[in-house]
Amino acid sequence: MKSYTVSELLSQHITPNSEVEIKGWVRTFRANRFIALNDGSTLNNIQCVVDFENFDEALLKRITTGAAIHIKGDLVESQGKGQSVEIQANFVDVLGDSDPETYPIQPKKHSFEFLRENAHLRTRTNTFSAVMRLRSALSFAIHKYFNENGFYYMHAPIITGSDAEGAGEMFRVTSLDSKKPPLNEAGEVDYSKDFFGKETNLTVSGQLEAETYAMSLGKVYTFGPTFRAENSNTSRHLAEFWMIEPEVAFMDLPGNMDLAEDFMKSVIKYVLENNKEDLEFLDKRLQDEDKKKPQAERSPMTLIEKLKFVTDNNFKRVSYTEAIDILRNSKPNKKKKFKYIIDEWGADLQSEHERYLVEKHFNCPVILFDYPANIKAFYMRLNDDGKTVRAMDILFPGIGEIVGGAQREERLDVLKEKMAAINIPEEELWWYLDLRKFGTAVHSGFGLGFERLVMFATGMSNIRDVIPFPRTPQNAEF
Amino acid sequence: MKSYTVSELLSQHITPNSEVEIKGWVRTFRANRFIALNDGSTLNNIQCVVDFENFDEALLKRITTGAAIHIKGDLVESQGKGQSVEIQANFVDVLGDSDPETYPIQPKKHSFEFLRENAHLRTRTNTFSAVMRLRSALSFAIHKYFNENGFYYMHAPIITGSDAEGAGEMFRVTSLDSKKPPLNEAGEVDYSKDFFGKETNLTVSGQLEAETYAMSLGKVYTFGPTFRAENSNTSRHLAEFWMIEPEVAFMDLPGNMDLAEDFMKSVIKYVLENNKEDLEFLDKRLQDEDKKKPQAERSPMTLIEKLKFVTDNNFKRVSYTEAIDILRNSKPNKKKKFKYIIDEWGADLQSEHERYLVEKHFNCPVILFDYPANIKAFYMRLNDDGKTVRAMDILFPGIGEIVGGAQREERLDVLKEKMAAINIPEEELWWYLDLRKFGTAVHSGFGLGFERLVMFATGMSNIRDVIPFPRTPQNAEF
Repeated sequence: MKSYTVSELLSQHITPNSEVEIKGWVRTFRANRFIALNDGSTLNNIQCVVDFENFDEALLKRITTGAAIHIKGDLVESQGKGQSVEIQANFVDVLGDSDPETYPIQPKKHSFEFLRENAHLRTRTNTFSAVMRLRSALSFAIHKYFNENGFYYMHAPIITGSDAEGAGEMFRVTSLDSKKPPLNEAGEVDYSKDFFGKETNLTVSGQLEAETYAMSLGKVYTFGPTFRAENSNTSRHLAEFWMIEPEVAFMDLPGNMDLAEDFMKSVIKYVLENNKEDLEFLDKRLQDEDKKKPQAERSPMTLIEKLKFVTDNNFKRVSYTEAIDILRNSKPNKKKKFKYIIDEWGADLQSEHERYLVEKHFNCPVILFDYPANIKAFYMRLNDDGKTVRAMDILFPGIGEIVGGAQREERLDVLKEKMAAINIPEEELWWYLDLRKFGTAVHSGFGLGFERLVMFATGMSNIRDVIPFPRTPQNAEF
Repeated sequence: MKSYTVSELLSQHITPNSEVEIKGWVRTFRANRFIALNDGSTLNNIQCVVDFENFDEALLKRITTGAAIHIKGDLVESQGKGQSVEIQANFVDVLGDSDPETYPIQPKKHSFEFLRENAHLRTRTNTFSAVMRLRSALSFAIHKYFNENGFYYMHAPIITGSDAEGAGEMFRVTSLDSKKPPLNEAGEVDYSKDFFGKETNLTVSGQLEAETYAMSLGKVYTFGPTFRAENSNTSRHLAEFWMIEPEVAFMDLPGNMDLAEDFMKSVIKYVLENNKEDLEFLDKRLQDEDKKKPQAERSPMTLIEKLKFVTDNNFKRVSYTEAIDILRNSKPNKKKKFKYIIDEWGADLQSEHERYLVEKHFNCPVILFDYPANIKAFYMRLNDDGKTVRAMDILFPGIGEIVGGAQREERLDVLKEKMAAINIPEEELWWYLDLRKFGTAVHSGFGLGFERLVMFATGMSNIRDVIPFPRTPQNAEF
């Protein structure tokens, strides 16, 4: 007798009336007869029919929600509706009980907050198993895309001795005695006695290191964890999150836009094609949620419509300057409907402005480029106008910015000036400057916060619900 | 005119005599005529022929090793030997100079130590570009294998509030003032004031969290960074390294062995098929190195032979007890050639013993299983004999242990006893115990240190040479 997963049993590649064997967890047990069994391989359950007269009553009592069971029987066409096949069980064994009095995941609606507290069990629900299967599929789609397009995956370091990236507050990594750290003659903590012989932190970005690899291997990308020690207790921030950062030698900003657009479309297409069931489930979940909201707050697009909005539209490319003009003259700006009124060039755009451009004005994904230098990072390529940089942000419906990228400053003298202006010592980034000393060239890349992508693709509205074990202020459980 | 990579130009899919365009870095410039150009897309260079009479002398002087250049010309069949095609250049531009007086990477043999100090430039050499392309290919092969076999990728947390895993010394992650941390009433550091409201560390393994996902999604794997704050300044240890940890519900130890063997063979087959040039280069490099050694120290197998030794042999499965018998009666043990003499059951095996079993006794990869409980981790499934656990180690030629795995203890009472015996409080791992309370089942998994695999597949003997920016005691540069 062969052992199968639920996904295999439902795939219709198995001859009906075969003897089959399966192990999984009970989702529900109805009428002392119908077990809905799930093993995580798919959103769907397989129905196992037990003829209760043939089984011990004590055994049947142990078939409770969450119990692990082992079933043998015949795969037959289902009599009932809702499934094509079912198992007519002739052997049932309980591998692991699940006490209905204490098992937290009952077949009813649990709040997401409750499930966050039970993050070790929450993938036993439909919503979270669908989200995490999609997270996995998106990861694979990303690796597949880059592999097929000649990129090399590079692991940027997690512990970094440099704090010059300036992307945000960093966590310190240390082995020093926490209570009485060694002090130097000046009375300061003596990091030369720490594990790495200097002060070290958790990385905020692998980009600068990725640039060193782009300038030798040509096309590279990182996909790894990054960190921010910022006390942002919001539904959009994590202290630990994963980032994707491609970097390409000899590529300019328009090339960067082409790459980013093709990449985003490709990974979203992948899940539309490969994760239909999970997406349809999440789409319906979201529509049901929406129905409870007042009309004005409902989403103008369903989840799947939003994904197709990305794959089926060309991304409109608009300069920052143009966008400011559009926003300044827009209805919500004039009628002061925006929380932040746009009155002059140089303003940093908020999510409300980005969404207006995407959802109201252009009605397609938008790439803004050539941002004011002083609201962007030091390593971005200065334009000839001396006031804008070759930066780009990609804006999506529902969330605003999802990708941020730039052509990098490849000119040694300009880069040094920009570093000096914000007090980054050259010794800190001697190796980064070396790239401009030896065989420098135009190069570009972008960063995508992976959890933002997972939120977009699953319709989940809290970032804590798209990563297995979220790290946020006051929370590092599990 | 179309722009190509070197890999594309050499692939012979391009019609000879086409006009082509390419950007890359000069490896060498011979006889004021032959540029060997590399762009990282392949180990190989494309030869670009410049007719020096048609170019400005000042320009030609700038074509130095490491310079970034832009070439246009005709792709023609090569007159010389060593390459099938070459570019007859009619346009040459220097994008970024490389001063031969100061550029560290000259066309000569550099010591690996020197290149470690220039880790930001070392992928501009053949050896390191080959190693890092292989590292990337191995990563992809891993994701591909798991994706094709129904596994979900899960990102285990990097920052952990639990220090119960016991796999080694941990790095502390903190935002507290390093000099004057807040103290509680007892005069100890008050971690409740730290970012996460408790003491946190960098993870040493994602296994326990992966188990929570296996017990809901069925088959999962992690592939992420892990850390050890151990002062091991050896060629085999890193403070930061990447680990792969699959975990499967309803799988016992023999199933775990099947999975691990199939997995290892599959990823190595992938690079044998997809990275021929890089492997052949590294194979030759190793043979050249070997020739300089005394006969006794030379490797009995070349690099590619070693890889095929893994893909072409069945892995021999031997119990720890059997292995101890074999070792006890072996020549090197009797003649005291082993550094550590095996005299009784219970001894922890060293690399010399593992290699003896693989290279001398069985002449194939070996899986040892059923180890003494007291030399293995608390979470491993205790056998009925009460003294061994369902652990397994996979042993490879040249290195010994490469994979360590186990069937996990699924029985709540036994697990609690084992935790109590080594003073892990139940509150620390309440969530891990929950997996045994609710729907517990047999499950298994293993761990593979990614850098060990890269060392094996590239023949590099120092682990610092197979990760982009190694983190070791006293070193967190870049």
